[in-house]
Amino acid sequence: MNIISGGVCAAKGYTASGVHCGIRKNKSKNDIALIFSEKKANAAAVYTTNLVKGAPLTVTKKHISDGQAQAIICNSGNANTCNANGIEVAEKMCELTANELGINAEDVVVASTGVIGQPLDIEPIKAGIPMLKAQLGNNSLQAAYGIMTTDTKVKEIAVSFEIGGVECKIGGIAKGSGMIHPDMATMLVFITTDCAISSNLLQKALSSDIKDTFNMVSVDGDTSTNDMVVVMANGMAGNKEITEENDDFASFMKALNTITVYLCRCIAADGEGATKLLECKVTGAKDDFTAKKVAKSIICSSLTKAAMFGADANWGRVLCAIGYAKCDVDVNKVDVAFKSNKGVIEVCKEGSGIEFSEEKAKEILLENEIEILVTLGDGNASSTAWGCDLTYDYVKINGDYRT
Amino acid sequence: MNIISGGVCAAKGYTASGVHCGIRKNKSKNDIALIFSEKKANAAAVYTTNLVKGAPLTVTKKHISDGQAQAIICNSGNANTCNANGIEVAEKMCELTANELGINAEDVVVASTGVIGQPLDIEPIKAGIPMLKAQLGNNSLQAAYGIMTTDTKVKEIAVSFEIGGVECKIGGIAKGSGMIHPDMATMLVFITTDCAISSNLLQKALSSDIKDTFNMVSVDGDTSTNDMVVVMANGMAGNKEITEENDDFASFMKALNTITVYLCRCIAADGEGATKLLECKVTGAKDDFTAKKVAKSIICSSLTKAAMFGADANWGRVLCAIGYAKCDVDVNKVDVAFKSNKGVIEVCKEGSGIEFSEEKAKEILLENEIEILVTLGDGNASSTAWGCDLTYDYVKINGDYRT
Repeated sequence: MNIISGGVCAAKGYTASGVHCGIRKNKSKNDIALIFSEKKANAAAVYTTNLVKGAPLTVTKKHISDGQAQAIICNSGNANTCNANGIEVAEKMCELTANELGINAEDVVVASTGVIGQPLDIEPIKAGIPMLKAQLGNNSLQAAYGIMTTDTKVKEIAVSFEIGGVECKIGGIAKGSGMIHPDMATMLVFITTDCAISSNLLQKALSSDIKDTFNMVSVDGDTSTNDMVVVMANGMAGNKEITEENDDFASFMKALNTITVYLCRCIAADGEGATKLLECKVTGAKDDFTAKKVAKSIICSSLTKAAMFGADANWGRVLCAIGYAKCDVDVNKVDVAFKSNKGVIEVCKEGSGIEFSEEKAKEILLENEIEILVTLGDGNASSTAWGCDLTYDYVKINGDYRT
Repeated sequence: MNIISGGVCAAKGYTASGVHCGIRKNKSKNDIALIFSEKKANAAAVYTTNLVKGAPLTVTKKHISDGQAQAIICNSGNANTCNANGIEVAEKMCELTANELGINAEDVVVASTGVIGQPLDIEPIKAGIPMLKAQLGNNSLQAAYGIMTTDTKVKEIAVSFEIGGVECKIGGIAKGSGMIHPDMATMLVFITTDCAISSNLLQKALSSDIKDTFNMVSVDGDTSTNDMVVVMANGMAGNKEITEENDDFASFMKALNTITVYLCRCIAADGEGATKLLECKVTGAKDDFTAKKVAKSIICSSLTKAAMFGADANWGRVLCAIGYAKCDVDVNKVDVAFKSNKGVIEVCKEGSGIEFSEEKAKEILLENEIEILVTLGDGNASSTAWGCDLTYDYVKINGDYRT
């Protein structure tokens, strides 16, 4: 498997674009994006479990119910959620996109991200869609910019892999930043592949993958109303279609996982206000459930996050987060260490503090990618969760998000 | 019922003291406190549900198992948690206190609060206990100062009430600030009363009360390892002992609730870095469980907390938090309003935004006590939760807590 360039346009038959149409006031920021497959693609999606759901999710669910899609239209700057006319606007976005591309509105996936509860004006979108059509090309990056909200970094990735001797490609873009605590679904992620795979297995691959990837990310504990991951597979690579859980399916899963893990790390590292990526690796758990719960509890702890911001090896907060994770853990068997490019340092053995060099710990924690290593000494299950530190800028960004 | 002065010394037979003994470096801060009842008292307690428990909790549980106690010794600056010799040190604290007071070590309640995982030196405590004894008197305030960590305000309250025509008193002190997300128990709260009540009913009153009070407080979602509420009732008011759930018990519950609600509000308002007290009132819920879950979900939402800091009426975040509360709520029936001394403003009706004056909203949200009013339109259950805003200072305080 090789990392390649091109993002969502890396796989055969996909083009993309992103422009500023006027939803955002800042003209230098793209606010609408389009991804198009020249051939109708099998499609799968997962959505937020928040009871409050963005109108675009309702429309997308309906459109994708036949397992197929050909285009994705997504705006930023407004979530089109909790609006009385939300569904109407989301449907109109699909209709406008379909007319422009000469496809069916039922084959358009629609997504929106931004502030909740403010009506989304269709006028700038009406103007934007023809611009998007005109710009369609190898423009994954422009599309990735178009879906960003408070993200500071663009998030895209692609890999090539082989299925039955045929080269396939898969690529994705994502937006993250705030209101990130996916639960059985995730933030906005769009993935394209030219691999031929049935829509059933595509959904199976996605639903399985997110349990260990996007569902293990948290920026702030707030599960968004508009989370969505969509994968399109147009089959243009020419491999024999994957229709069962064989070796080819495993190869596809591996490629998909490379894309999703990369995007998880990007989303966590670029969490609102974040200065550090936190990766919590729990090993020695009695079962998968425990490993996941413990890892996620640590990554969500405001106190642990603030300590990491301060490069403070305050491991007691890690123990505290393990203790309230509501799992069957023997806290007297827990070991904790911190790791980064500068080395690794053990700070807690069997539930009690051990002597360690504060100086060395500081040096390790001043890096911008920190691993929190936890061993539960209770079995063989393991899990990884991704998060970020809690900083002044998180407060700043969210203290006046709407103004 | 009347609010009176005196805190934990208001009720008959109780004295208290607080001094600096050297656990903290800052000599101007008290770091150890003592509460003493001249008569052995019935006692009840509730503790954190965190699996990682401070050593003092283990010792206190043992000592209080007979339903009685006569003194409370509590230090700040070190939680005596995750230390190999923690139990030994906690027992020593009881022994030293008992010797000084001429009582049994088994009648001493011990508590500690501060950093986790650093050995607690017994030497300063050895020196401090005789000082505490010497200062015993009407010094509730000094004791309240002695248990503070990052608290900025001292928290004490007392009320008088009548049981069968006899005047009884009840008072309490508390420490809060960070690592506050009590779960079936709470932070450090010490309550004294001269009301005669059996230890069974005292425990029943406390266990019932905290479900609607301390368990509905959150500062940062981190359930502490050392949470504890202790009530002592020495019977010196002279009322007929309460031994059943009659009208007298109801009167006692009401007095207790006045103390606990007051302390909840103090703890939330003085959350680490807080500039605002948030009080979320949920009404119209289908049941108590739903009302509580929804209220607590809102009060815990980092995004809602940051919006309140910025006086931003970003009610979409309130809806979002309701949606992920994992309750059976019809989000299309939800109304939201914000209220303070400056008035009340409706911002969401039946799950959708309504037009409102941003100017008026700002004026309301700039106050330092904000009510978030949520109506679910689904029944008659209601609940209140208390929290605070998320500020730069929360990050500052916790970025370098140990240094």
